[in-house]
Amino acid sequence: MTALPTFADVLAAAGRLRGVTVRTPLLENARVNARLGGRLMVKAECLQRTGSFKLRGAYNFLSLMREADRSKGVVGWSSGNHAQGLAEAARLMGMKATIVMPADAPALKVANTRASGAEIVLYDRVRESREEIGLGIAGKTGATVVPPYDHPWIVAGQGTVGLEIAEQAKEAGVMLDAVAAPCSGGGLSTGVALGVKGLSPTTSVQAAEPHGFDDLARSLASGRKETNTRLTGSTCDALLAPSPGDLTFALAKILLGPGLVVTDDEAVDAMEVAFREFKIVVEPGGAVALAAALTGKLPVKGRVVAVVCSGGNVDHASFARALSRYEAP
Amino acid sequence: MTALPTFADVLAAAGRLRGVTVRTPLLENARVNARLGGRLMVKAECLQRTGSFKLRGAYNFLSLMREADRSKGVVGWSSGNHAQGLAEAARLMGMKATIVMPADAPALKVANTRASGAEIVLYDRVRESREEIGLGIAGKTGATVVPPYDHPWIVAGQGTVGLEIAEQAKEAGVMLDAVAAPCSGGGLSTGVALGVKGLSPTTSVQAAEPHGFDDLARSLASGRKETNTRLTGSTCDALLAPSPGDLTFALAKILLGPGLVVTDDEAVDAMEVAFREFKIVVEPGGAVALAAALTGKLPVKGRVVAVVCSGGNVDHASFARALSRYEAP
Repeated sequence: MTALPTFADVLAAAGRLRGVTVRTPLLENARVNARLGGRLMVKAECLQRTGSFKLRGAYNFLSLMREADRSKGVVGWSSGNHAQGLAEAARLMGMKATIVMPADAPALKVANTRASGAEIVLYDRVRESREEIGLGIAGKTGATVVPPYDHPWIVAGQGTVGLEIAEQAKEAGVMLDAVAAPCSGGGLSTGVALGVKGLSPTTSVQAAEPHGFDDLARSLASGRKETNTRLTGSTCDALLAPSPGDLTFALAKILLGPGLVVTDDEAVDAMEVAFREFKIVVEPGGAVALAAALTGKLPVKGRVVAVVCSGGNVDHASFARALSRYEAP
Repeated sequence: MTALPTFADVLAAAGRLRGVTVRTPLLENARVNARLGGRLMVKAECLQRTGSFKLRGAYNFLSLMREADRSKGVVGWSSGNHAQGLAEAARLMGMKATIVMPADAPALKVANTRASGAEIVLYDRVRESREEIGLGIAGKTGATVVPPYDHPWIVAGQGTVGLEIAEQAKEAGVMLDAVAAPCSGGGLSTGVALGVKGLSPTTSVQAAEPHGFDDLARSLASGRKETNTRLTGSTCDALLAPSPGDLTFALAKILLGPGLVVTDDEAVDAMEVAFREFKIVVEPGGAVALAAALTGKLPVKGRVVAVVCSGGNVDHASFARALSRYEAP
């Protein structure tokens, strides 16, 4: 098994990302704090370049590749944030990227990935396997496969989100009781735990997942890797990984508290609060940790809690629907 | 006439605001840059506490009041961002605030202002004068009137937006060719000019206004204070001041380049771009400087340009309407 990444790897990643990624702000809202009876800090990672945290891990990965491999390019598969993050990281590093995307992916996501200069290979979700296509390209061209989460370089890169949270809380003069981050394969949540605990070892860190796709929560409860029964069907389209990664689950068992699970409706309500109170655009999957705090599943009362809003790549119609749930006071 | 504020006043204001206001990020988007052929940096001041820059000037003003006056509280009139900024500044300073608001102001804005602990006095827009009511309260209670823009303490506070832009551009290793900010009474745009030019004297600074409410642009062109013919009727409800202030016009003549004027539709289109590319929530009036850059009225090609997105207090229906203007590629 691969060696687990450490806080030192997160610090090294932060050095590589300096001047490349945005140090996204840690936002607070007096009304939300008053309502929850504590302090809720929102790490607005939706403001990151490419609209999600994914650039951090991808750029760290590409920076660590050997010179000889870099010229052969990278390949990845994703219909969403990893595609855009990887394509943009490759553009910034002057490398060729090939991204395998489903033919029915939203036109905007395909266009955004292509705008970073990546070559897009479309596949049929029903009849083809994206892994096979991606590995085929890697075999033929010598390109390096960049996995979405289950790799120490990826985890260390995402961990810079946690490092920044711990630094920003310190700058604000507060001690963090708890931190939560959205979880699909576990790269972000375990990375955040590494980064936060490096500076603030007693802060608890938890992963938040959508109902029905709570494989990590169930895996942490049972002590072994559990798999979701469904592969699609959540509004939180960014959080559909079927089970935790090997590396991320090993880290999760050491670093994370019990999993937080929210419903799709709770995630969408959190998007509306993010719009109204924090003035940020958050996609459904990016809002699940915020939803856990707003619903009390992650208690804020009498505490200082930070949540990661991990992405904002949501289409216009879905966002307008989230807003329509609000009823004026 | 009151002495004009200087860069030293902006620096002093920045010291007072440290730990109180958010150092809002300066965001960039690779696709927008590629499309415009230059670098466009967006100062996301909609992420400021209370959802707009107004807290900066109000807090600086309250900090500079004499001890004896502070106990008598403050009074202001506003239906929008100044009300929320002033009420929150007073709450943070432990002072009493009375805000005169129109009886037909949006319920959410009244509720938000009240949530900061301010006393709300509602008036009838048609039959009553808010100035008379406000001055009456000040006369009776000894409360200090906090003006929305035409005061050196207000301008210096808003100027910290410009100071941060100049600092953040320097951190990013770029030299700013031009900066633009939305303009109603001119407190933000002239303050930004003071702050930017203190660190970057050759950078040009311009104010952006909505079509039909371009009193500053026309005043700068004619050399004397011009007044808008209409008092209402723009989507940019935050930018309806009828003419420049005395102090702000004096500063504008020294510090600002020619005015930028955009249509309501251009402002609303900029809101959509802010949603799609920058993941921030911007109100119509807050988007006029961004609109000037996106339409080419403020040229970005071959240059480095920063624009302030000054506020995000927009209701759900208006925001959803802005999103509905987008057509997928």
